Amino acid sequence: MNSDCTLSIDAMGGDNAPRVVIEGLALSVIRHPKLRLMLHGDATILEPLLTQFPGVHKASQIRHAPDSIAMHEKPSQALRRPDRGRSTSMSRAIASVKTGEAQAAVSAGNTGALMAMAKIQLRMIPGIERPAIAALWPTVRSESVVLDVGANVGLDERQLLDFAILGEAYARVILGIDKPTVGLLNIGAEEVKGTEAVKAAAADIRASGIDMNFAGFVEGDDISLGKVDVVVTDGFTGNVAIKTAEGTAKLIGHYLSSAMRRTWMSRLGYLLASGAFKVLRERLDPRSTNGGVFLGLNGIVVKSHGGTDGIGFAAAIDLAVD
Amino acid sequence: MNSDCTLSIDAMGGDNAPRVVIEGLALSVIRHPKLRLMLHGDATILEPLLTQFPGVHKASQIRHAPDSIAMHEKPSQALRRPDRGRSTSMSRAIASVKTGEAQAAVSAGNTGALMAMAKIQLRMIPGIERPAIAALWPTVRSESVVLDVGANVGLDERQLLDFAILGEAYARVILGIDKPTVGLLNIGAEEVKGTEAVKAAAADIRASGIDMNFAGFVEGDDISLGKVDVVVTDGFTGNVAIKTAEGTAKLIGHYLSSAMRRTWMSRLGYLLASGAFKVLRERLDPRSTNGGVFLGLNGIVVKSHGGTDGIGFAAAIDLAVD
Repeated sequence: MNSDCTLSIDAMGGDNAPRVVIEGLALSVIRHPKLRLMLHGDATILEPLLTQFPGVHKASQIRHAPDSIAMHEKPSQALRRPDRGRSTSMSRAIASVKTGEAQAAVSAGNTGALMAMAKIQLRMIPGIERPAIAALWPTVRSESVVLDVGANVGLDERQLLDFAILGEAYARVILGIDKPTVGLLNIGAEEVKGTEAVKAAAADIRASGIDMNFAGFVEGDDISLGKVDVVVTDGFTGNVAIKTAEGTAKLIGHYLSSAMRRTWMSRLGYLLASGAFKVLRERLDPRSTNGGVFLGLNGIVVKSHGGTDGIGFAAAIDLAVD
Repeated sequence: MNSDCTLSIDAMGGDNAPRVVIEGLALSVIRHPKLRLMLHGDATILEPLLTQFPGVHKASQIRHAPDSIAMHEKPSQALRRPDRGRSTSMSRAIASVKTGEAQAAVSAGNTGALMAMAKIQLRMIPGIERPAIAALWPTVRSESVVLDVGANVGLDERQLLDFAILGEAYARVILGIDKPTVGLLNIGAEEVKGTEAVKAAAADIRASGIDMNFAGFVEGDDISLGKVDVVVTDGFTGNVAIKTAEGTAKLIGHYLSSAMRRTWMSRLGYLLASGAFKVLRERLDPRSTNGGVFLGLNGIVVKSHGGTDGIGFAAAIDLAVD
């Protein structure tokens, strides 16, 4: 991990921007002392804010951007702005990657607009039609790459095949596995089940002659069990899956705390095991794995959840530094 | 809850049938002493097996069925059997509901074949095109109905609207809520996100003038949080979601047990709180909520997971009794 790099930040992206973004960066500059930051956003807001965060201030240069993209703006609206939205903080954050001034861009803003702008400015890797958002998913074995978790709704077999290739390449780099296993998310392991696109994609991957460790279909429960290193699906299903897992973790946390309050013995047990519960809470904190990487572009763009806090944004920065 | 009823059982359906089915029924006849059972299956196998389960034996009558449907058989193959598969245990289990001899049929067999056969024999409620499988999902508040969790891959807006109506009616009965809230599963709460079918379904439900407490879009994490009483989605997404939740629960169980082994203090705490952990394990056991009800048919058919054990099958029976 080399933290001696420059990241380009969309300081105005996200539900509670720019405050949450700067709070996250305050953690990041402690974790990565050599990190340099380019903050794109409204200088009249950012400058007074940075006086409260001297560590971020020291690592940053502010690049004034007069506009910003709203969270609920359609991507097509964002691109219909004058000069395709090039005066927005999001667009300029991406542009700094294109010029080579920064090694990666990070935004917690509007996902669709981020994808559209990244695609126009950075362009796709030859042969790939659409970018995917890849997430790192904690598993019983270690971690797996799951993609797409939100960039595209509905994919045909060709795109699923592309995403299998992108995910496999990403897993090699980020998980350090020579020949990652790849599975297609489906509703049964049998060849007769699933959508036409998923069935055709499995046949295409097998027929393509691509040198890939393809394991066929996997089901929802196989993700957390770490049955394969790379799980490929469309952005609708992948997004529902990742958020369902988050909701389930919250539900279990709720069960756990009510179970521990049942008797004085369990209360005492809880006290004695409080260190273990702290570890558990940290592992389950969805903020600790916040951040998805856009794959398929000529340049690195990391998307943080829009509703995250500083801890979550800092995790997205960790991923960008990786 | 009235357990004074007759259930029709596909004794040959499921990965480990008929043994697992009979083991499940052995629990069910203890829980529901007045329950009567019609066991459809190969009498030459069932008769000697029942001698090991006197409780089940006493409550049951065996109806010999010479054939059974294989787990990986395509529904179209099943229906191409002589007389549309009417000599199979699955078909005959459904037929007993149609004749009124049994109040509900339960099968752990091939989902697609079960749906196809149930549709042909019991027929759809007027106005409904396809059946849905509805599951009860534990939430922070209590339970919610989630449908479809596996019957249909890919739905148009009309079918999503149908499922909203079916799910709402089911929630009124099974959850005892006067005006259940209904949400459509999507990848964002905003109207611009999601598939065309999901967006059109939301507009159609609003425009239809149906007297329904429609809450708009919900996301994956909202299911376990119990944001709405009824979550409507297509069978592909719903199946991935429910299995992802199961996998996440297993992952957290794994984290929890390794966290508790970290120090002697946490080990002692674990011992003291073992009663609480037992309660937690029971709440998280996916077998305890096993069983989905087919909605939209003129008759009750309950689908148990194919890979479940006796405890899971017994839970499916509980649901049928309800």
